[in-house]
Amino acid sequence: MSGLTLSSFSFEDVPTSEIDAAEALYGGLADDVRTLNDLTIRTRVDADAVGEARALLQRAVALLAQDAPPGPAGIHYNDEGRSWNWGNAVVGVRNAVAPPVELEWHDDGTVGSALTLGAPYEGPPGSVHGGVSAMVLDHLMGETASARHSRVTVTGTLSLRYVQPLPLGPVRMAARIAEEAGRKVTVTAWISADTADATPSVEATGLFIVPRWAQEPDAPSGIGSLD
Amino acid sequence: MSGLTLSSFSFEDVPTSEIDAAEALYGGLADDVRTLNDLTIRTRVDADAVGEARALLQRAVALLAQDAPPGPAGIHYNDEGRSWNWGNAVVGVRNAVAPPVELEWHDDGTVGSALTLGAPYEGPPGSVHGGVSAMVLDHLMGETASARHSRVTVTGTLSLRYVQPLPLGPVRMAARIAEEAGRKVTVTAWISADTADATPSVEATGLFIVPRWAQEPDAPSGIGSLD
Repeated sequence: MSGLTLSSFSFEDVPTSEIDAAEALYGGLADDVRTLNDLTIRTRVDADAVGEARALLQRAVALLAQDAPPGPAGIHYNDEGRSWNWGNAVVGVRNAVAPPVELEWHDDGTVGSALTLGAPYEGPPGSVHGGVSAMVLDHLMGETASARHSRVTVTGTLSLRYVQPLPLGPVRMAARIAEEAGRKVTVTAWISADTADATPSVEATGLFIVPRWAQEPDAPSGIGSLD
Repeated sequence: MSGLTLSSFSFEDVPTSEIDAAEALYGGLADDVRTLNDLTIRTRVDADAVGEARALLQRAVALLAQDAPPGPAGIHYNDEGRSWNWGNAVVGVRNAVAPPVELEWHDDGTVGSALTLGAPYEGPPGSVHGGVSAMVLDHLMGETASARHSRVTVTGTLSLRYVQPLPLGPVRMAARIAEEAGRKVTVTAWISADTADATPSVEATGLFIVPRWAQEPDAPSGIGSLD
């Protein structure tokens, strides 16, 4: 993808300790909203209870909206090599829409993740939406291509093969670099149920690109995949 | 994908008017939670205000949890040809994680959708996450393959080409059937910014399959795509 530049990232003169504290504060809020995302699908309470709940939510909305500038969260970095993308749709710790995915970086270059996909991620009855599998695999594969955030990559192409339904619940995915040629990195990945005898539900291959602008000497470190 | 059967769908002896009323009641709740998903990313209020908001949210959680059986929403249908998949990750009207996508069925067989993707769908700074584009396209393409829900389809393969970043905000997507051969339906699609001169940000081709079990004479009508 073209159109992004170094100035897409925002340098912040904020120590990592402050970033960590903000993540804990607003991440806790996101946990509560994540619970609400799940319950809103499953609840059977009557109209009076729904009305009462909505009144509470609207009071919370008014509180949070007192200081909420428009626009998305963006990607920021400080001079300690810390970066944060709180709104990211897959890994954003302040984003209750994100599962969120937590990455496991292995020494052999593979990247894995174990996560639980519940009611908000349904497609076929009782199964993970095929598009959700595509979304989390795309992110995992981009991170893998970034070689532990040592370079910026963007997605070029992504191909998915749907083998069997993926039951909602605990799932596991893994990705590895299959090939590298110049600025092109080919990554393969799979996602499956998180059981001992599970076979992949979805298999994926993606081509990720290191943009020319990301090779400039003043490119910020620690950014990684631009999924 | 194999593993799904006719019994994956649940027949409910409920008139359509009751389903519509439930959608309005719980859909309103989902709208409030959707607002919270957005604000949780953007708010800058202090720890006291976050604490006060969280206390309100936790009271709402307690109310909604009073009657909320475990498990996902599933796909249901009645004898009036109405089906509902309230928890679907892309179109579920009770799912605040879903944008939600609303489909436009055109007489020429194309299916379109205009939607707004805000802060919770971010990937690169200010842009839609590539995985989110994959997710909504997968769903749109599956629905297209179902030929206005006249047959059940599941995703076989999906290939995406990322051409340029897709800015957060109003976007538009469209899909059409490119080819049909037996139980195999090939669909092409694109997503772009919703402006007059926009060119596609992501292009996609997918192979969708009509499962053998879905050709049985007692297959429920109105179900459509099993994304």
